[in-house]
Amino acid sequence: MNASEFRRRGKEMVDYMANYMEGIEGRQVYPDVEPGYLRPLIPAAAPQEPDTFEDIINDVEKIIMPGGCCLGRGSNQPIRCVQSLGAGGSLEKGLAPACKPPVPPYLEAASPACTELETVMMDWLGKMLELPKAFLNEKAGEGGGVIQGSASEATLVALLAARTKVIHRLQAASPELTQAAIMEKLVAYSSDQAHSSVERAGLIGGVKLKAIPSDGNFAMRASALQEALERDKAAGLIPFFMVATLGTTTCCSFDNLLEVGPICNKEDIWLHVDAAYAGSAFICPEFRHLLNGVEFADSFNFNPHKWLLVNFDCSAMWVKKRTDLTGAFRLDPTYLKHSHQDSGLITDYRHWQIPLGRRFRSLKMWFVFRMYGVKGLQAYIRKHVQLSHEFESLVRQDPRFEICVEVILGLVCFRLKGSNKVNEALLQRINSAKKIHLVPCHLRDKFVLRFAICSRTVESAHVQRAWEHIKELAADVLRAERE
Amino acid sequence: MNASEFRRRGKEMVDYMANYMEGIEGRQVYPDVEPGYLRPLIPAAAPQEPDTFEDIINDVEKIIMPGGCCLGRGSNQPIRCVQSLGAGGSLEKGLAPACKPPVPPYLEAASPACTELETVMMDWLGKMLELPKAFLNEKAGEGGGVIQGSASEATLVALLAARTKVIHRLQAASPELTQAAIMEKLVAYSSDQAHSSVERAGLIGGVKLKAIPSDGNFAMRASALQEALERDKAAGLIPFFMVATLGTTTCCSFDNLLEVGPICNKEDIWLHVDAAYAGSAFICPEFRHLLNGVEFADSFNFNPHKWLLVNFDCSAMWVKKRTDLTGAFRLDPTYLKHSHQDSGLITDYRHWQIPLGRRFRSLKMWFVFRMYGVKGLQAYIRKHVQLSHEFESLVRQDPRFEICVEVILGLVCFRLKGSNKVNEALLQRINSAKKIHLVPCHLRDKFVLRFAICSRTVESAHVQRAWEHIKELAADVLRAERE
Repeated sequence: MNASEFRRRGKEMVDYMANYMEGIEGRQVYPDVEPGYLRPLIPAAAPQEPDTFEDIINDVEKIIMPGGCCLGRGSNQPIRCVQSLGAGGSLEKGLAPACKPPVPPYLEAASPACTELETVMMDWLGKMLELPKAFLNEKAGEGGGVIQGSASEATLVALLAARTKVIHRLQAASPELTQAAIMEKLVAYSSDQAHSSVERAGLIGGVKLKAIPSDGNFAMRASALQEALERDKAAGLIPFFMVATLGTTTCCSFDNLLEVGPICNKEDIWLHVDAAYAGSAFICPEFRHLLNGVEFADSFNFNPHKWLLVNFDCSAMWVKKRTDLTGAFRLDPTYLKHSHQDSGLITDYRHWQIPLGRRFRSLKMWFVFRMYGVKGLQAYIRKHVQLSHEFESLVRQDPRFEICVEVILGLVCFRLKGSNKVNEALLQRINSAKKIHLVPCHLRDKFVLRFAICSRTVESAHVQRAWEHIKELAADVLRAERE
Repeated sequence: MNASEFRRRGKEMVDYMANYMEGIEGRQVYPDVEPGYLRPLIPAAAPQEPDTFEDIINDVEKIIMPGGCCLGRGSNQPIRCVQSLGAGGSLEKGLAPACKPPVPPYLEAASPACTELETVMMDWLGKMLELPKAFLNEKAGEGGGVIQGSASEATLVALLAARTKVIHRLQAASPELTQAAIMEKLVAYSSDQAHSSVERAGLIGGVKLKAIPSDGNFAMRASALQEALERDKAAGLIPFFMVATLGTTTCCSFDNLLEVGPICNKEDIWLHVDAAYAGSAFICPEFRHLLNGVEFADSFNFNPHKWLLVNFDCSAMWVKKRTDLTGAFRLDPTYLKHSHQDSGLITDYRHWQIPLGRRFRSLKMWFVFRMYGVKGLQAYIRKHVQLSHEFESLVRQDPRFEICVEVILGLVCFRLKGSNKVNEALLQRINSAKKIHLVPCHLRDKFVLRFAICSRTVESAHVQRAWEHIKELAADVLRAERE
């Protein structure tokens, strides 16, 4: 969609919203639909080819609106007698450029449509990734997906679920153990390349977190993990949680899931796989092998808001056993032991997350998946990966530079051969010029520049121009150094 | 703003976004502004009278855009080399009715404008409420405000901050104490009328939570609190955290802050005040007395998305000492002890909340506060309170009914005199008819109906119609009962 089509469609949407407002007194305050009404109305998987915008809008009126509720947050129905106090919205707020259109605000309600579309969209997305069936919701199995706000929240939620589970297990075996006595010994792990949010989750959850030294390719391997586990168990600690990263933030390295996964399973350690950035690429068959080993995981997360054209925030999380998650947040933790309320048609996402309120985030997934089609999304990923390889080959052709880590997806880690100082000087020139902006990282003792391809409209010409620009500045830096 | 003005302004915004897209290659990728650039550009307090839409839009281009950053989430600048990997957005997603307009998406960046507008808007809002100066940010004091996603998150964040603080304090006095040994003894409190999210925060934080029995008006009072504290301290427990509620969800009752506050201060208990719904009313001088005692609090929270016309989600939280908050989330907890990095011009909200990523939520506050003006917002609150009293007086005129709790703001708790069974039957008829929708509650052993006024467009005629409808159904129910 180009800017001129956006103008047209955007204005149609404004009219749709205004019409909704004007007709609101005629709408029913509470939906008639039965739980599970939505799934039969839409396909079981995302379309391969794009749908038309007209089809999507018609489906909003036909499929979403009947399952909406004039009682929810931001709604504007004339009389409301709402569950929780207060939920007033205004038209004016909708004009703040970065905030939501105010209408149809009832879509934000804790309405059947909101919950049910999310369940189905998470299945669509899980199928695009060829996630093991155990993670999907569709057969009323034990797994399922939920949209979190960020990968940080997903990691925290997984850690809390794992903490509850291990405490229950140990207390079942030794009822005299207090929660505090157990928590004191719990230890979580990630590689030394994991995102800082993992350490933060440990801090919030009140448990130790240890970093496993990564190998020469910045990956976590079996041997280092085994060593840590032996050492910690010998010291009386209880390993209970592991975050493996696919596509680290610093250099897009991949922990070895096929090695780490079986160890976690054997040791009864909850395995959470964080593929925040890289996950989107797994919708392409040629990149799916990077996800191999996810079958060993208890939970998996990636951010469609990073690289799948869905706006922030939208972090997709799946679990193999949803009662593990809900057990950590339900107010009656004994729920875990005896109930399967959540295995039926009704999913109560309140029990899957930190906040209680929810926005209707699956709607943007539905729009994006249908307007691009799976093929369009795959093409988008492929183009970015191809452009990063284009940049990589430009760097490799210049003997003054080196590539620091194998380029697998859209990130190129590179530097001038030589000191950190000269690379710091280069970065400073690049960012002062403000034509492009690079954020560096440290890999072991090396100061490294990162070139990331992730804009919707990036083309080869931009990559070429950026490289010319970098080369010029590098020449300046090297000249200054010699003088 | 009516629907026809919304049509016009909404379409102008669509054009603004499309123009941004088309001109994006001409924009600088990184802002030139210095930290603190924004505050001098806008007034120190919200306007009393409404600003015009033109003025606001002009200010977006003049004040916000220069502090935006073409590198952030959802941005579409041609070449991006972003800090965190991946942040692609699409135009298509912007057409999902409940999702954000896609442009100017760079406003979503972790940009100076985003942070600085939030700081100033939280000061504006704090001044509207006449919060003690200690909670404001403007004089580079120790306090400040932050937007959280929900009151649940605010409670959790406060509890975690309190937990960190008490652990540090006790370990400073007795270095041999482990975190687990302390956590085992920590106990948090709320009234038995508090929202379930308080209990949930205790569960997540791994600490005990005890409910203080409320009095005949469903309020927490000094005597019951004193009793619990004596009992728990005698049992070796460590009271560390209190959630006092102003305007409970069930019946809009108010804990007695003037009694509870001094006790918390004396006992070194972190006092968090949750006014999720009622907080909006405190912008009216005649309701401000309900907030008296907030001067004893360490943190205070309410949800402008409930009753101040700002769309979900927007939960406003203030703390008296912001290093208490950041200390709980920073990866180096020793920060608390020796540093004042956060006391300067740069606020890094990442350390104030659970997720790392942030949306530009202060923008919708800015629009709403300016388009209504403080007087417009006050009029909105007053109208709702007046309508709830109108409903109350209708109920009081009918001898078959009773009012269950004093009506203070926009909620009326009422019931048919008589059995719970007859009230359950009435509720069932009301909600089956689907003309209005009521959600009940239990107050002690009584089944109670709740009539909440909180729609933007509600008028006296709606209240009158709703009451006629309820009376008719009540007559049916009472007739059926006699037969």
